[in-house]
Amino acid sequence: MTENSRPLFRKVALIGIGLIGSSLAYAMRRVGLAAHISGYTHRAETLEKAKSLGFADTLHLELASAVNDADLVVLATPVGAFGELARELAPHLKRGSILSDVGSVKMAVVRDVGPFVPEGVHFIPAHPIAGTEQSGPEAGFAELFDGRWCILTPLPDADSAAVNILKTFWQRCGSQVETMDAKHHDLVLAITSHVPHLIAYNIVGTADDLETVTQGEVIKYSAGGFRDFTRIAASDPVMWRDVFLNNRDAVLEMLGRFNEDLSALQRAIRWGDGDMLLTLFSRTRAIRRSIVDAGQDIGEPNFGRTRIKR
Amino acid sequence: MTENSRPLFRKVALIGIGLIGSSLAYAMRRVGLAAHISGYTHRAETLEKAKSLGFADTLHLELASAVNDADLVVLATPVGAFGELARELAPHLKRGSILSDVGSVKMAVVRDVGPFVPEGVHFIPAHPIAGTEQSGPEAGFAELFDGRWCILTPLPDADSAAVNILKTFWQRCGSQVETMDAKHHDLVLAITSHVPHLIAYNIVGTADDLETVTQGEVIKYSAGGFRDFTRIAASDPVMWRDVFLNNRDAVLEMLGRFNEDLSALQRAIRWGDGDMLLTLFSRTRAIRRSIVDAGQDIGEPNFGRTRIKR
Repeated sequence: MTENSRPLFRKVALIGIGLIGSSLAYAMRRVGLAAHISGYTHRAETLEKAKSLGFADTLHLELASAVNDADLVVLATPVGAFGELARELAPHLKRGSILSDVGSVKMAVVRDVGPFVPEGVHFIPAHPIAGTEQSGPEAGFAELFDGRWCILTPLPDADSAAVNILKTFWQRCGSQVETMDAKHHDLVLAITSHVPHLIAYNIVGTADDLETVTQGEVIKYSAGGFRDFTRIAASDPVMWRDVFLNNRDAVLEMLGRFNEDLSALQRAIRWGDGDMLLTLFSRTRAIRRSIVDAGQDIGEPNFGRTRIKR
Repeated sequence: MTENSRPLFRKVALIGIGLIGSSLAYAMRRVGLAAHISGYTHRAETLEKAKSLGFADTLHLELASAVNDADLVVLATPVGAFGELARELAPHLKRGSILSDVGSVKMAVVRDVGPFVPEGVHFIPAHPIAGTEQSGPEAGFAELFDGRWCILTPLPDADSAAVNILKTFWQRCGSQVETMDAKHHDLVLAITSHVPHLIAYNIVGTADDLETVTQGEVIKYSAGGFRDFTRIAASDPVMWRDVFLNNRDAVLEMLGRFNEDLSALQRAIRWGDGDMLLTLFSRTRAIRRSIVDAGQDIGEPNFGRTRIKR
């Protein structure tokens, strides 16, 4: 089943067809990963949009028909909905099939979905570290996962053959794959994704609330740095609410670190400790370089937004 | 002197030829703004680099010859050096000439440079809201200021003809120009630029210091959001140290607001207040849209880093 020449699965069911679900469909289509892709949404309007985009073979407003006979079922809605979805779709899962997801938190997924997984179904949580600030089926595209990492967090008793199939699946969608336990995943993502999103949302909110600086001024002069934060702070509100509600402990832990460090910086500014500032500012430059070297960002200045003509 | 067909100035002296100084030279050359561009640096190595790049007509390691007979002198080093530079170059300034700068803070520039400005020289502080995370003369390019705003903060008794000439100068360099008082400038920039840089430097420092998550993991999974912050946190360390040391009050004020708001968010996460999170996350999306509509950022997802092929 793992050769590149034929479908890895007969049927893949995408439960949720927003940015990630639709991108996954495009990525599967690109290399012929599934003979049949079914898509589920609870909104008639989203179904109509998806129909016109054509990335799925069948589209469904009810779970039973979407997952019927599927070899792989992927939960791709905001994580707050996973528990209820799992409860409803569990009776319709095929023996020997894989149940996975794309949620940004993993402990909560194990907690909410785990109890409903029927005997003989392989439950393997996953998280592709990829996305954009846009959402909905119109936002999807095949290249979203190219070169990005996908983290699998199989439980200790997971079937290794099933884990390998899911690994192959993500690799053929363009990803690099890593495996770790769910608790560590949640800690890693708290610092690499969740806290960055939180402080971006926060600074944009703060700027919007000032009485001494107008919103018009904030917008006009945003190229001074602020605009970078607004991209992340334009991410899907429901998805991110669910992330914070479901990775509370790790986020609060990392936020505590962030706050301690920020207090030290604040104190350095108040007391004019230029050496402390210079030391930090010099150190952070090296990390940027490592990220570009690792192929996780482009090296062009300003993310390539300013096209240099000379 | 303001027609587009001939130079606005006979000689312009750039005191500092890093990213901003060299970009200004390229921008001037693009439209023929100056018959002669002189560049000053205190480093022989930088002078050699600039010589090979060829953006200046003459290059100098001493101030007197650089500013001699100049119609416009622009301070373009980190702001911490402005006071000493002003003291040294003041005796060599030509009567009727304009002395300006490109510093990211303005009250401190008035404080440090103002006392040295000779009678008959027009001192008009300025700040182009443009830059990249790169520095040095190799980083400069003519398009840096295109479509960006340049803020002039003339003193109340400034000569309006001189202010208009400087305004024309920046417009012909590609900028839009706005005028405000120095105190308000420092407050606006604290929130649109300085605090965003500070929290970016801070989160990158925090991530680098963790014992539970490795630096390798931070780099691998940075596409979850963290990578965006590393770009800003790769900005010139000396320039940014000087910004924070010289805009202390406004930065601490805005940082205070940021901290209050972050505490409220932290509390909402701890107590599971999803409505509060959703309300904020929905509001911030609109600001992104306004910035894209105002032409201050591109609307493509992920700053256009992911090229969509379909």
